[in-house]
Amino acid sequence: MFKELLKEIVCSVDGAEGAVIMGMDGISVDEYIEQENLDLQLIGIELSTVVKEMSRAAISMETGPMGEMMMVNRDKTVIARKINDGYFVALVLNGKGNLGKGRFKLRLLVPRFAKEFE
Amino acid sequence: MFKELLKEIVCSVDGAEGAVIMGMDGISVDEYIEQENLDLQLIGIELSTVVKEMSRAAISMETGPMGEMMMVNRDKTVIARKINDGYFVALVLNGKGNLGKGRFKLRLLVPRFAKEFE
Repeated sequence: MFKELLKEIVCSVDGAEGAVIMGMDGISVDEYIEQENLDLQLIGIELSTVVKEMSRAAISMETGPMGEMMMVNRDKTVIARKINDGYFVALVLNGKGNLGKGRFKLRLLVPRFAKEFE
Repeated sequence: MFKELLKEIVCSVDGAEGAVIMGMDGISVDEYIEQENLDLQLIGIELSTVVKEMSRAAISMETGPMGEMMMVNRDKTVIARKINDGYFVALVLNGKGNLGKGRFKLRLLVPRFAKEFE
């Protein structure tokens, strides 16, 4: 069921290469890969470290809990949105992907995941 | 000179509360604060840890070098853009700030800083 939702978001966003639901412990729950060369496992593991660090920083900075992050690198853009304190979903775009639509789709999708992760 | 440029960006973006140029070592070069309660020193220090972690992750994930990050927390949004490997500039917005305009202004501004940081 998760894979279908991940596929739905990847296929509806220009330039999307894959999406993954990750635990903060670096173990993935499910993933969908559109671009076969994408090492989504490695990206997910690295992101789990980054999202944990950001969540910690958000508490220290007193800016309210972390909800979403975007990371624009030269060749790929990553959008991640927390499902709860233990899990997040990430969408990977190529360098020309539609960041705005990716954010919008993730925002709609996360509440549907959240129910399953309670 | 940096403060004037930081002020220019803060005053031109709806909801912007402050901007800072930080070293990756957590020492700020210059800052401009519009919203007097903002603890921009603390935010900058925490961001330097996050940006360093993202830069490391970008290399590991082979997504090209990190350029920009956005962090949307409940009460504040932070946009950071690397000037070079040693420095970055960050813009802090309140929860209703204009993220798109903030990104746009930072993108224009960073090349102007980059010349000074060579």
